[in-house]
Amino acid sequence: MNLALDMMGGDFAPLEAIKGLQLYLQATKKATVYCIGDEQLVQSLLNEYNVPRQNIVIVHTTEIVGYHEHPTKALKDKPNSSIAKGFQLLASGKVDAFLSSGNTGAMLVGAMFFLKPLEGVLRPTIATVIPKIGGSTGVLLDVGLNVDCKPQHLDQFGLLGSLYAESILGIPNPKVGLLNVGEEEGKGNALCKETYPLLKANTQINFIGNVEGRDIFNAGADVTVCDGFTGNVVLKMGESFYDIVKSRDIHNDEFMHRFAYENYGGTPVLGVAKPVIIGHGISNDVAFYNMLGLAEKMIETNVCGIIRDAFQNASVTVAPSKAE
Amino acid sequence: MNLALDMMGGDFAPLEAIKGLQLYLQATKKATVYCIGDEQLVQSLLNEYNVPRQNIVIVHTTEIVGYHEHPTKALKDKPNSSIAKGFQLLASGKVDAFLSSGNTGAMLVGAMFFLKPLEGVLRPTIATVIPKIGGSTGVLLDVGLNVDCKPQHLDQFGLLGSLYAESILGIPNPKVGLLNVGEEEGKGNALCKETYPLLKANTQINFIGNVEGRDIFNAGADVTVCDGFTGNVVLKMGESFYDIVKSRDIHNDEFMHRFAYENYGGTPVLGVAKPVIIGHGISNDVAFYNMLGLAEKMIETNVCGIIRDAFQNASVTVAPSKAE
Repeated sequence: MNLALDMMGGDFAPLEAIKGLQLYLQATKKATVYCIGDEQLVQSLLNEYNVPRQNIVIVHTTEIVGYHEHPTKALKDKPNSSIAKGFQLLASGKVDAFLSSGNTGAMLVGAMFFLKPLEGVLRPTIATVIPKIGGSTGVLLDVGLNVDCKPQHLDQFGLLGSLYAESILGIPNPKVGLLNVGEEEGKGNALCKETYPLLKANTQINFIGNVEGRDIFNAGADVTVCDGFTGNVVLKMGESFYDIVKSRDIHNDEFMHRFAYENYGGTPVLGVAKPVIIGHGISNDVAFYNMLGLAEKMIETNVCGIIRDAFQNASVTVAPSKAE
Repeated sequence: MNLALDMMGGDFAPLEAIKGLQLYLQATKKATVYCIGDEQLVQSLLNEYNVPRQNIVIVHTTEIVGYHEHPTKALKDKPNSSIAKGFQLLASGKVDAFLSSGNTGAMLVGAMFFLKPLEGVLRPTIATVIPKIGGSTGVLLDVGLNVDCKPQHLDQFGLLGSLYAESILGIPNPKVGLLNVGEEEGKGNALCKETYPLLKANTQINFIGNVEGRDIFNAGADVTVCDGFTGNVVLKMGESFYDIVKSRDIHNDEFMHRFAYENYGGTPVLGVAKPVIIGHGISNDVAFYNMLGLAEKMIETNVCGIIRDAFQNASVTVAPSKAE
């Protein structure tokens, strides 16, 4: 398999990407990694860190999409940027996955523009992995791509998250919960009230009902569904809580340690044809290493193909009841 | 001043209420406390704990609104319940504040039905106090009373929270932030995009712009405004995080300790004529003690009167721009 890695994205680019790549190549020889970025810079760091070259292809680019650039404009104006090039390689089939810790907006726009949503998927989504008390791991989605959602979108997030949890986290028949302000059916804002019956009627998922803010870290639901506004607030609040714990020297705790973003590598875009993974801006070597491992797993499990098939089935069997 | 305390509300009623009352009466003699509940039960516990009687009036009631009862129906069907009686005393002017750790929904319905929103207040709201890194304390609102909001509601929450932070937390000219998914103006869901210009134009508050999930515990904003759905998720997630920290024996930390709900006593209902405070179902003696202290402070600072005056001004000066 071929993975494309943006060497120019992230606060510590390209150094941490190089170090992460080195860790990855030490661990596995399954993939060839296309390193996209300034050839001379990448070359010299590969030499400096004695990274073996047999599984590496350098793809030279001359431009970078900055963190504060407008995503759509930047991708249009900079076809030779590392992000644009990565998507070109992915769309053409030259590589099987694209990973970047660069401009998140540009990654999302790129995923939509170069790959397009899978047939039947109304809104591709981004998910985050959540450590659960007790040792298991869950998925929360959407975490910011879709800040205004309709019930049909949340219903689909239930299926997207479910397939991801099953394929990537290895959870059979994952329990899907709707993030809400109360447990009982009928609780919530207008969006939740309309979403509940759709999730309940969805035969492709194992819906367990509403979950509350206090349940995010418990094992009640494996997949927690919400709109991207709420999910983004939850994600960032969780991150800040971990930062607080870490800064206060109380992080030598097994559960708290599992909050460390770098253990999860990055955020997958779900609902597009091929694996696209967005890393945290502050990604370190371990984060890049895990991003590459996640890409490998997404390819090996064929999760994007599984999602494609499920939505082709969904469009036949589930759509009529949605039109009620 | 006269405070009405529901002795029958809370998971450990009436024992913890009695113990909290005892702590309160040991600390201050400013108020007479009307203890609403089963007279014999309250009497015997007051005797058992040797609570001095000079600042206590027992108001006998024979009914209780259970935790799972429908609020409106329960208040209607049980006029001799401790919650209904508390609101009757408050509405009639016999007492100056009403406090209960009973059925939250019934407390909210009671506040609306017996007191009504203040003139100009579109939606009364409930706020929670948030510990901030650095030692200060902030306010987050709405935390669940209004799960579907319009921009005008959030704008008013900015003023309500601001006046509360100033009067009760002693923060001069409190900084008001809009909880959002990004810092820049123009970010967010439809609600935030429409709310931002209202808050910006609101001359009665010190609006500092958007804040994110990661900013909830930092000192950026003293008052964080959001819809009640998001606020409820944030509140419950914060509580669960504290519970996790506590259960893992890493709570002997000054900041984490400040999450302990009992330190804040309860959640005030803002935008109604008189102080109404809703306690946590699990309220212990310290929580009841702090609820009584909060009620005292709300009366002494006349925060409800300050809110009333501000909204009378607001209805003259701010309303026209809202109609744009």
